[in-house]
Amino acid sequence: MKGFAMMGIGKTAWIEKDKPAISPIDALVEPLALAPCTSDVHTVWGGALGDRKNLILGHEGVGKVVEVGSLVKDFKKGDKVLIPAITPDWNSVEAQEGFGQHSGGMLSGWKFSNFKDGVFGELFHVNDADGNMALLPDGMDLATACMLSDMVPTGMLGVEMADVRFGDTVCVIGIGPVGLMAVASAAIRGASDLFAVGSRPDCVRVAKEFGATEIVNYKNGDIVKQVLELTKGQGVNRVVIAGGDNDTFDQAVKMLKPGGKIGNINYLGEGDYIKIPRVDWGLGMGHKQIIGGLMMGGRLRMEQYARLWKAGRIKPGLMVTHTLNGFEKVEDSLLMMKDKAPDLIKPVVIL
Amino acid sequence: MKGFAMMGIGKTAWIEKDKPAISPIDALVEPLALAPCTSDVHTVWGGALGDRKNLILGHEGVGKVVEVGSLVKDFKKGDKVLIPAITPDWNSVEAQEGFGQHSGGMLSGWKFSNFKDGVFGELFHVNDADGNMALLPDGMDLATACMLSDMVPTGMLGVEMADVRFGDTVCVIGIGPVGLMAVASAAIRGASDLFAVGSRPDCVRVAKEFGATEIVNYKNGDIVKQVLELTKGQGVNRVVIAGGDNDTFDQAVKMLKPGGKIGNINYLGEGDYIKIPRVDWGLGMGHKQIIGGLMMGGRLRMEQYARLWKAGRIKPGLMVTHTLNGFEKVEDSLLMMKDKAPDLIKPVVIL
Amino acid sequence: MKGFAMMGIGKTAWIEKDKPAISPIDALVEPLALAPCTSDVHTVWGGALGDRKNLILGHEGVGKVVEVGSLVKDFKKGDKVLIPAITPDWNSVEAQEGFGQHSGGMLSGWKFSNFKDGVFGELFHVNDADGNMALLPDGMDLATACMLSDMVPTGMLGVEMADVRFGDTVCVIGIGPVGLMAVASAAIRGASDLFAVGSRPDCVRVAKEFGATEIVNYKNGDIVKQVLELTKGQGVNRVVIAGGDNDTFDQAVKMLKPGGKIGNINYLGEGDYIKIPRVDWGLGMGHKQIIGGLMMGGRLRMEQYARLWKAGRIKPGLMVTHTLNGFEKVEDSLLMMKDKAPDLIKPVVIL
Amino acid sequence: MKGFAMMGIGKTAWIEKDKPAISPIDALVEPLALAPCTSDVHTVWGGALGDRKNLILGHEGVGKVVEVGSLVKDFKKGDKVLIPAITPDWNSVEAQEGFGQHSGGMLSGWKFSNFKDGVFGELFHVNDADGNMALLPDGMDLATACMLSDMVPTGMLGVEMADVRFGDTVCVIGIGPVGLMAVASAAIRGASDLFAVGSRPDCVRVAKEFGATEIVNYKNGDIVKQVLELTKGQGVNRVVIAGGDNDTFDQAVKMLKPGGKIGNINYLGEGDYIKIPRVDWGLGMGHKQIIGGLMMGGRLRMEQYARLWKAGRIKPGLMVTHTLNGFEKVEDSLLMMKDKAPDLIKPVVIL
Repeated sequence: MKGFAMMGIGKTAWIEKDKPAISPIDALVEPLALAPCTSDVHTVWGGALGDRKNLILGHEGVGKVVEVGSLVKDFKKGDKVLIPAITPDWNSVEAQEGFGQHSGGMLSGWKFSNFKDGVFGELFHVNDADGNMALLPDGMDLATACMLSDMVPTGMLGVEMADVRFGDTVCVIGIGPVGLMAVASAAIRGASDLFAVGSRPDCVRVAKEFGATEIVNYKNGDIVKQVLELTKGQGVNRVVIAGGDNDTFDQAVKMLKPGGKIGNINYLGEGDYIKIPRVDWGLGMGHKQIIGGLMMGGRLRMEQYARLWKAGRIKPGLMVTHTLNGFEKVEDSLLMMKDKAPDLIKPVVIL
Repeated sequence: MKGFAMMGIGKTAWIEKDKPAISPIDALVEPLALAPCTSDVHTVWGGALGDRKNLILGHEGVGKVVEVGSLVKDFKKGDKVLIPAITPDWNSVEAQEGFGQHSGGMLSGWKFSNFKDGVFGELFHVNDADGNMALLPDGMDLATACMLSDMVPTGMLGVEMADVRFGDTVCVIGIGPVGLMAVASAAIRGASDLFAVGSRPDCVRVAKEFGATEIVNYKNGDIVKQVLELTKGQGVNRVVIAGGDNDTFDQAVKMLKPGGKIGNINYLGEGDYIKIPRVDWGLGMGHKQIIGGLMMGGRLRMEQYARLWKAGRIKPGLMVTHTLNGFEKVEDSLLMMKDKAPDLIKPVVIL
Repeated sequence: MKGFAMMGIGKTAWIEKDKPAISPIDALVEPLALAPCTSDVHTVWGGALGDRKNLILGHEGVGKVVEVGSLVKDFKKGDKVLIPAITPDWNSVEAQEGFGQHSGGMLSGWKFSNFKDGVFGELFHVNDADGNMALLPDGMDLATACMLSDMVPTGMLGVEMADVRFGDTVCVIGIGPVGLMAVASAAIRGASDLFAVGSRPDCVRVAKEFGATEIVNYKNGDIVKQVLELTKGQGVNRVVIAGGDNDTFDQAVKMLKPGGKIGNINYLGEGDYIKIPRVDWGLGMGHKQIIGGLMMGGRLRMEQYARLWKAGRIKPGLMVTHTLNGFEKVEDSLLMMKDKAPDLIKPVVIL
Repeated sequence: MKGFAMMGIGKTAWIEKDKPAISPIDALVEPLALAPCTSDVHTVWGGALGDRKNLILGHEGVGKVVEVGSLVKDFKKGDKVLIPAITPDWNSVEAQEGFGQHSGGMLSGWKFSNFKDGVFGELFHVNDADGNMALLPDGMDLATACMLSDMVPTGMLGVEMADVRFGDTVCVIGIGPVGLMAVASAAIRGASDLFAVGSRPDCVRVAKEFGATEIVNYKNGDIVKQVLELTKGQGVNRVVIAGGDNDTFDQAVKMLKPGGKIGNINYLGEGDYIKIPRVDWGLGMGHKQIIGGLMMGGRLRMEQYARLWKAGRIKPGLMVTHTLNGFEKVEDSLLMMKDKAPDLIKPVVIL
């Protein structure tokens, strides 16, 4: 079978591989639509995960079941399925503790295009099929379905980690697709004032549609100062970091009230240390909680987010600015993600 | 000063009283708008709190500060203020534990029209003014402001106690004003499928505007059966009880999944026991959590809910179906609440 | 192979069965020690789970691995292993939501002696071996190991559901083995005053060793009255129900403060309704939370509780009052549990 | 009245001041016993809070009520009372949100020897007496009572922020008095393996008495390496930081499992940034939560910790290594704290 792969840091190619073998609890799936992710760009051109050879890329997509193992109970050949980017080993002690995404070690629930071939192949392997797939709901378009793999759960996670409550003032830093989904998630978890930090017009437009009450543009000056002005010097209750770099934490702590919480969903690709400003962090006593995490993965959350879409609470499809057609366009889509044109939020490839 | 009072069980009258005295931490307030509550009806005609003589009724309203005690820091004469129905003693051990509404004993944070004169007077007393008032936000209409006293916080509490999360299926039983606010609250705390149990057309209309995805009408048969059908036999994740009686808990437990939670905000006026069905409660092992509570009260929550209104997340004003003018109309408004015409959700009296 | 089985309600017998078949993720285990549980008594003589024919009994034990499926990673033939009474399907949506004990339906994570043969056989089957077994720690005696199957996790659960915090006053109603473990658990989760309701001298002695500060004996009068006296009329912050019947909830609610929590771990075998007293429950607004649950099951918790034993925090072995020798003594041990002699807490059979 | 005061950075003196004035909700208290705190040392010789002139020092002590304001309900002249170091404004919005210690701004619930005169005076002022004092329990010695002001609540907070659960492996870094109380608190909140990082023999002895299962001495090499060896490379579930400096967070993150939590109770006196190691923090996705806070303060917690002492769960008196007699010895006691002799844990001055 054919797949679009990383050949080494900075190098990609189409390669041929054998059809993946499945164990009795796994499934083999054929993609119906695929989407590239900024992490794919980090992986290939940034070498963020270290070197990888002949590794098929991709972890966002929707597909059709081609084969299931003998112990798989709830899926069968022909089923159309949602696939999360993270596919935990659900019987691990980590998953039993609520952290399946770290089953087998930190971040090791992330298998696609990391420890095994990703979804940019003519076929791909899903470990623990009953635990890691969900039926594609009637009426869901394939572009939306692709957004459920990673963008939706990651945005939701940011808001869950920041623990947004009724009436909280919230700042989402970064409004690429993951930040946009954090905006949408904050709006349906009780945020009142919802500040979105960003500048690209298309992102700004979608942020407003998703519930942002104010856009904070760093081109207009220090974002901390702007947020403090908007809150009359009080700061916000919650911050979701969905962009920037290690120094963004300095800003986040500074715009946060005592008792506030920061949820990071930004992949931090460089540098040795995240820097927490001592004085603004209350000399260690300011009750400003900091956490960053990887999306949960697994079937339950796919089903939950699909229900949210069905009930009309989230509209992730609005983020898809570009649609390509044909498996071979996966390569183009990844380059689009790398080059990030001003009008791009998220491309999708329909097969 | 004049006030509309309970003279005994089943009896009301306009009475004259002295202007309330305030301590150094209290305030004296003149009402700008008032609203009657079903609890006032229970209090007078149901005798639910026991007998009361010459007690001015009412706990929903918005007003203007007439006088403040010497230790009050954040409010001054002339300020327009939101007033919560529940006004805790914030330095009590109960409040320090997170249960100000029970400061001084179970339900004792509820003072208006219970332990002291309510808001249906030409003036009323607010204990711990800094802790129990909030500035009326610019642009908020008085009808909406009245809804913030009790309807909004009680609806929010139901959803907080039921602990609604992203993608949860939720059933709200009862769509009077408190149930409607529970519907609105569930929709902005992550509910996906949101079933509202009710039948009156105006309530149904507002429930849909507030985010209900399905109306369950008891006139169409057993509501448990209907909810189980809507969820393909699975039951819902969360139930908010905002109407019915002691037997409603039987229904709630039956339509709830294992691991689910029930939040009760219905004032249970009669009967000896709430009945929990043993088998459906998993023989005591089904992990179906049950809790009922009184709204929190206090300034912080007034400010939080005001921010939610300002951000456009909630529109409690849509529940106000009838507006009356003039202080003396308080009596009519209470009778309207008692008689509950088919087209009534909530009346408000503008002074 | 031989097993001690339920032949129908009220009837037991030794039977012959084929060796259980295992799937690629399961294991086959030979018991090293076994213990009967009051639930076995309920199952056989009370018919609590409905009728069962030729079903091998037992869900408490420790064993040696005889065979593992091809996908089992962490265990091999010859390993000595702890076995929880509850063995969830870890990839189920219920387990992903944190309720593996209800995987496949309410209480369906409970498989031994319920949906499949229990541990009172010469061999027994463990589903999802990697997820549901834990290595027997060096130095742990077999009697203690048996207590880890059910008594320890159930006692711990009661305290977790009641959410005991630093300085809480706690009442544990019932001090059979599960209640005793709740006492021990409350003492290491921050309880201050810890009232244990019971009367049998041996149980009272162990309750004190486990950290009870006061024994409340129902033979000395109404336990609610006694608890209120001990707390100067305040009531307790937390109640764990580990004995009694449906009416015990009435007592628990009455001795509980507003804002308090009740965790039930008592198997409720009879009656239609659990009765919650309306007035003491604050007319539905008293913030008295009620939950009852089944132990979690699975490997993680076995490992956690084993660590607690190793660190000397819990001493479940103190509950073992009677030790029998030889597989065939399983029958006697069950009858001892049925007859419950005054000096019996828990018997164990060493093979 | 006389008081022992800070006259400027690095300078102390005995001064005369007027008797403090009290408002209707406050109390005036005469000390019965006092204790110096390392923070007093930071304040005077480190200038950690900035310069202060003629400010009476001290925030740990127990006293007798001399006078109460007219609105104080629960205390009267002559009552012996526990006094927390932190005395929030309980009706503030911050306190209503659960963060009274930050009422009026970050850390502003800390008033003694910060914004107003401390307890090292012949008399001292307690704001909001009903909310911030608790009766000295019968039988409690004065040394223990002093430990309840700050050492006990701060240690407890560390463990609450780290959210220690049944069976968690826990590392407490630093075993001065606050770290020792964190050890004691972890042991009664469910910790299994409990590593205490320290070296002074007296502290080590008390750490073991308080429940530490292993002492990690930095003199024996890198503490991260030691903890990883003790946990077979797994790391711990929870870390409480009670000593060290900004770099200690680097160590804490490195010894922590994904999904783990860090609670900081160390006053961070120097440096610009706390450094979080990017890779060990999972590139921002490792689910390693970091929080640092100031003790809660207030009456409820004093009562809770007093109950824990009465029930024999904590023995803070064991930390008092030196007892002095006479008010004027407050000066010596502070110098002892500054010089920290090898055998000193905590001195107390009995008046």
